[in-house]
Amino acid sequence: MHSPTELQKIIEDAILKLAYPSKPADLYEPIKYIMSLGGKRIRPVIVLMATELFSDDPLKAIDVALAIETFHNFTLVHDDIMDNAPLRRGKQTVHEKWGVNNAILSGDVMMVESNKHLSKVDVSVLKPVLDTFNQTAQGVCEGQQLDMEFETRDNVSIAEYIEMIRLKTAVLLGGAMKLGAIVGGADEKDANLLYEFGENLGVAFQLQDDILDVYGDPEKFGKQVGGDIISNKKTFLHLTAKALVKPEELPALLGDYENTEAKVKAVTELYNNYQVKEQANLEMEKYLAKAYQALDEITVPETRKEHLRQLVKQIMEREN
Amino acid sequence: MHSPTELQKIIEDAILKLAYPSKPADLYEPIKYIMSLGGKRIRPVIVLMATELFSDDPLKAIDVALAIETFHNFTLVHDDIMDNAPLRRGKQTVHEKWGVNNAILSGDVMMVESNKHLSKVDVSVLKPVLDTFNQTAQGVCEGQQLDMEFETRDNVSIAEYIEMIRLKTAVLLGGAMKLGAIVGGADEKDANLLYEFGENLGVAFQLQDDILDVYGDPEKFGKQVGGDIISNKKTFLHLTAKALVKPEELPALLGDYENTEAKVKAVTELYNNYQVKEQANLEMEKYLAKAYQALDEITVPETRKEHLRQLVKQIMEREN
Repeated sequence: MHSPTELQKIIEDAILKLAYPSKPADLYEPIKYIMSLGGKRIRPVIVLMATELFSDDPLKAIDVALAIETFHNFTLVHDDIMDNAPLRRGKQTVHEKWGVNNAILSGDVMMVESNKHLSKVDVSVLKPVLDTFNQTAQGVCEGQQLDMEFETRDNVSIAEYIEMIRLKTAVLLGGAMKLGAIVGGADEKDANLLYEFGENLGVAFQLQDDILDVYGDPEKFGKQVGGDIISNKKTFLHLTAKALVKPEELPALLGDYENTEAKVKAVTELYNNYQVKEQANLEMEKYLAKAYQALDEITVPETRKEHLRQLVKQIMEREN
Repeated sequence: MHSPTELQKIIEDAILKLAYPSKPADLYEPIKYIMSLGGKRIRPVIVLMATELFSDDPLKAIDVALAIETFHNFTLVHDDIMDNAPLRRGKQTVHEKWGVNNAILSGDVMMVESNKHLSKVDVSVLKPVLDTFNQTAQGVCEGQQLDMEFETRDNVSIAEYIEMIRLKTAVLLGGAMKLGAIVGGADEKDANLLYEFGENLGVAFQLQDDILDVYGDPEKFGKQVGGDIISNKKTFLHLTAKALVKPEELPALLGDYENTEAKVKAVTELYNNYQVKEQANLEMEKYLAKAYQALDEITVPETRKEHLRQLVKQIMEREN
């Protein structure tokens, strides 16, 4: 059995070995660039861990892991265009460096590259692998669409928000788990349980992200604490507070401030007064419990599940 | 055997029956919109014709035909963003109607929809179908990249231009042919010959497009005759003329004019003086001959090839 760290190393090595055509350079350079920006490689690691839950050879899922990582990076390239984001992992975004048109087209080719990786799996599992991947990809696009729509909507409910993060973030973790399970030889029931595990973990992961954005340790968080407050993002914390505050407090939650520091301070105070963090934690624990329940029900020996439990612990104890 | 017209009707009916999710509406409405704008449906018709060359049931390739048509429309949506085009088939482009971000994301989902269609083919041909499709999709993206780069380059050679239209236009016709052949049960040699047929036909088709853009009958052409001249597009005609004219004539070919009418007139005169149309015709005939040679070599009875020959005739005799 491989630890999450060992699997991450395997992924990094595989990504380094990826060969793209040299021409047209402006089509393929952005792909090498975004793929080399790093990150925790959680999604492809998850694929291999899910495979190892059912098989002694996690490497037989390496192409699926690369498909998932390439797809994830494709969504980053296109999302960054839509969000007009200048930076990604502290570096220039692809559209800043190569222009929007190039970023669109390089993203498109990354989608093709994902499908090329996928098509290398054993033909005995090719059809369920494609079905799971396509359903996942479609969900992620739907999530991004909802996320964009929420920016200009004033009546987003908490349930809608949970559905958005389920699609935008959690479906890909669930899909990665299920794909790994399929390649590992899991039966349909176990593969679906692993999907449930991943999807619920993904919702918990995003809720924790919302909490960290406000309550993270500034020295460890890596980004500006309060970024979501500054950009008026309709997070779980924001929507919960909005539902709870007195009418006369609404302007403080929604209004303009002289400077971002004052805004972060005032909104965080409101969050504190209404115990919004505690409610977000409760919601997060709810999804985490659902995730563990699904993992418990999977019919493999407990010892095989240890690394997945270890990964969840790492993810949920992170400070950035 | 079905005529091209009968197959076109089958495609139109199948497109009408396509069901997309109703939500998020702004993600799926653009897909219905662009798919319903019509066009000649040449690519999906070609898939079915290629299948019928080897099988009595062309309809078993209907999902591949829909994949190809959806993919083609996806490229139109993204290309129109990159080209900043306001109109497509006389109607507003998707990004004009829904905004650029929506057009990017709807295009992305169309790519997923293409792959969903593809994954429905019989598992016995799934792997070669995916390989052919992915290679095709990658080529089309590379062609679009070259096309964009040529806009700002002053030293595009005729060979580079031919390579660009091969990738951007011809590879998809070749891919459609080969996919249909695979589903129809062709052996690898025949499938590759049909690819050659399609690809060479595609280059001829685009060269004819270049000719029609200058020499088309204004009453039948449907677009403004001389559009390529007005937009300084580096077509086969333009590049051939540029290589032939005297240095003192270069400003007339490249320069600014008081009005577009004067420009079209003057540049067309240059083309006439150097018999550029005739050379484009020769080049087109060369590719057409290669296409027919590949078709001749395919090991099915001549009677089965009749509809394909009929389609080529229709395509090459078109006036718009």
